[in-house]
Amino acid sequence: MASLALFTDRYQLTMLAAYARSGLAQRRAVFELFVRRLPACRRYLVACGVGRAASLLSDLSFSGDDLARLEADPFLGAALRDPAVRDLFERFRFGGRVLAIPEGRVCFPHEPLIRVEGTLAEAQLVETLLLSIVNHDTRVASKCARIVTAARGRECFEFGTRRTHEHAAVDAARAAYIAGFSGTSNEEAGRRYGIPVTGTMAHAFILAHAADHGEDGEAAAFRAFADTFALPSTCLVDTFDTLRGVDRASEVPALAGVRIDSGDLAALALKARTRLDLAGQTRAHVVLSDDLDEYKIDALTRALVPVDAFGVGTMAVATPDAPSLGAVYKLVALEDARGHMVAVQKRGSGKGSSAAPKQVFRTDAGDVIAVEGESQPGEPLLQPLEPIRAEQPLEHLDHSLAAARARLVADLARMPERLRAVDPRRDDEGFPVTHSDALATLHARIDREGRAVL
Amino acid sequence: MASLALFTDRYQLTMLAAYARSGLAQRRAVFELFVRRLPACRRYLVACGVGRAASLLSDLSFSGDDLARLEADPFLGAALRDPAVRDLFERFRFGGRVLAIPEGRVCFPHEPLIRVEGTLAEAQLVETLLLSIVNHDTRVASKCARIVTAARGRECFEFGTRRTHEHAAVDAARAAYIAGFSGTSNEEAGRRYGIPVTGTMAHAFILAHAADHGEDGEAAAFRAFADTFALPSTCLVDTFDTLRGVDRASEVPALAGVRIDSGDLAALALKARTRLDLAGQTRAHVVLSDDLDEYKIDALTRALVPVDAFGVGTMAVATPDAPSLGAVYKLVALEDARGHMVAVQKRGSGKGSSAAPKQVFRTDAGDVIAVEGESQPGEPLLQPLEPIRAEQPLEHLDHSLAAARARLVADLARMPERLRAVDPRRDDEGFPVTHSDALATLHARIDREGRAVL
Repeated sequence: MASLALFTDRYQLTMLAAYARSGLAQRRAVFELFVRRLPACRRYLVACGVGRAASLLSDLSFSGDDLARLEADPFLGAALRDPAVRDLFERFRFGGRVLAIPEGRVCFPHEPLIRVEGTLAEAQLVETLLLSIVNHDTRVASKCARIVTAARGRECFEFGTRRTHEHAAVDAARAAYIAGFSGTSNEEAGRRYGIPVTGTMAHAFILAHAADHGEDGEAAAFRAFADTFALPSTCLVDTFDTLRGVDRASEVPALAGVRIDSGDLAALALKARTRLDLAGQTRAHVVLSDDLDEYKIDALTRALVPVDAFGVGTMAVATPDAPSLGAVYKLVALEDARGHMVAVQKRGSGKGSSAAPKQVFRTDAGDVIAVEGESQPGEPLLQPLEPIRAEQPLEHLDHSLAAARARLVADLARMPERLRAVDPRRDDEGFPVTHSDALATLHARIDREGRAVL
Repeated sequence: MASLALFTDRYQLTMLAAYARSGLAQRRAVFELFVRRLPACRRYLVACGVGRAASLLSDLSFSGDDLARLEADPFLGAALRDPAVRDLFERFRFGGRVLAIPEGRVCFPHEPLIRVEGTLAEAQLVETLLLSIVNHDTRVASKCARIVTAARGRECFEFGTRRTHEHAAVDAARAAYIAGFSGTSNEEAGRRYGIPVTGTMAHAFILAHAADHGEDGEAAAFRAFADTFALPSTCLVDTFDTLRGVDRASEVPALAGVRIDSGDLAALALKARTRLDLAGQTRAHVVLSDDLDEYKIDALTRALVPVDAFGVGTMAVATPDAPSLGAVYKLVALEDARGHMVAVQKRGSGKGSSAAPKQVFRTDAGDVIAVEGESQPGEPLLQPLEPIRAEQPLEHLDHSLAAARARLVADLARMPERLRAVDPRRDDEGFPVTHSDALATLHARIDREGRAVL
């Protein structure tokens, strides 16, 4: 895959040049990526993105064309005439060590989702790309996990491609799948990630048959569709009269199901189920869609509406109740001129301290954020992704989507019920996340002295 | 560029197969893409996306690998063994005629943003890709136009790459530029589209110097940055104490400006301006950023805060007040078995009629949506994008970003002031958009008879 070295903010490139010029580029540095606060409608996040970020980092480099473009730039060009700067760009390969909370794990604000250890230059350069990936994928997975919970065991399918950028759609399908969706409509997500792909028919297909036969064309359309494919088909029944559509679909010998995409879904699903059963189509599924989110799905499943699967589009990919995630990427430790690793801290923002490399330990009683190297009870969440080189893809961690899905199922099962609730009470406690004594002491020292040798 | 044929919903591929099998694939068809209603916080939309969609449509085809994948699919594979189906996929090239409201034009609900005329198969297949592109780009451009209006002549720069998918970021920068932004931080957007790219420095760069020198490292960092680049530099001044940062920046001989990214922006900008002027840095700019949107920018510019430019990130790309756009793509006319073009209509949704190919005519008094071929006073908004073939890129319309920017400036200048207001009164009238008598008559006929020969 082509390198995404230019898929970044310009200032990452000015930084590379200025670090090289200042002799700082090779200093050891540690950055961490974390979220400061939960979006209002979330009680937890689902870590997502690092699995695809890892391979993109391995591939990062500046092509000859990239370098030619940067040399021609009025601002960057002058800096690239310095041999030390040019050398850094020409030879750039990401060789850092990355630790991350594996995809599919439940996580919380202030917990480092990713820790990058490397030279100052390489760890700085990857900031924008890591944030783009993790902010997007974690935002979608965190919403979709709630939708799956609300579906109470019924299948959810991601249908949101048309509501997001054509490339974002592919990775939104991946995030939804990690969150427990059963599949996607996105063909490229199937090709790239092996996610099950599903799809029925267009209203235009029914209308095309209606152009010749009037509304009876609906039955002709269903027959033509079933005739085209060898396997049982799902029929879209709401083009004209939904219940007549169900009756026409019932005449298809190998009917997989009916999809209802408009109207009073609860009432139509109940009537459709009855008609399908009376017609002997007891195994045909009822699939509902139409701007569904976890609240609407929760209401349908609580009411025991006879539905087998949900199609979810806009709400899964655009996540309108939390349309952006604000993860940040902060320098938490750096080698100083004497070779000591020191924690330094941006002050004055009132945003709290993030200094020092950290690990997170989880027990059923809560998470403890500790200084890296501390021993604490519980399971350490950050796991190394290494080696992370193009010639040697990372293998230490199981990056399969199946593993990520299994992690989420296990984590959600262990979480307090109040956090899984689709509509949690406002006064419910969040999951307890505390700092270890050592981290608290270290932060107090940095607050007093501006820095602390680690 | 690789074809995006698989960047689509599965059902577009089942439709291709079923149309081929039913003998409908070559019927002439017309689809239109339009938005049903304005998001609550918008009074107009800015058409955006068709410029980049055009070249993607030209390139659409199924590669050998694509076909192998589809053949191996349990559902689609059986259909592809039919020679008529296989032939349609193998030879697929988009050869349709596309008309569109050019990028940068102001437009409104129910107005077709794009009309696609072609075979039923080709016009159907492009649905998902067109929707993904236009929904994304128009959403961002429509928000950014409001931000530019609120800036009252000050420059706006798009800094949102980290808040959206890494590929969406590139096209968000393009949409923001069409909407009047002066540039972006996204390097790839500069490479791909020629958009001016801008960037300053990272907080980590200041902290890296502070690791050796304490907070005096800030001055060392500014000097090192200025020393790296030949041109005047903008300094990020809020790492420690913002006003001390301004003083340190003032000592940089060739100072382009200072950027303030946190705190009370209005108060800090005023004090920074005063200090810069007293230090003789009268030409240095004050650049503000920190979750800015059109409401915050409007307040700053109304208060005559001395600011030269704004950096806008999350709000420009995630557009949280309208995080998705719901454009749809509907079959509006189709050749029937006797060779007549007929308008057909999905019923029962209460969503209003969209049948018949349409044109939009604009006068200062409002827009009139008319049946294609009608003569109406005013300027026709939909313009042909043709020829749209890989070997012959479309040239009829000026697709440069400069042309799109100019169209928007001209359209906004002609629009009633009440629609441009950042915070319009709820009872203000929208822009008048009406149906021509002929279109109203045609829709009444289709409502009665289910179809109408055109």
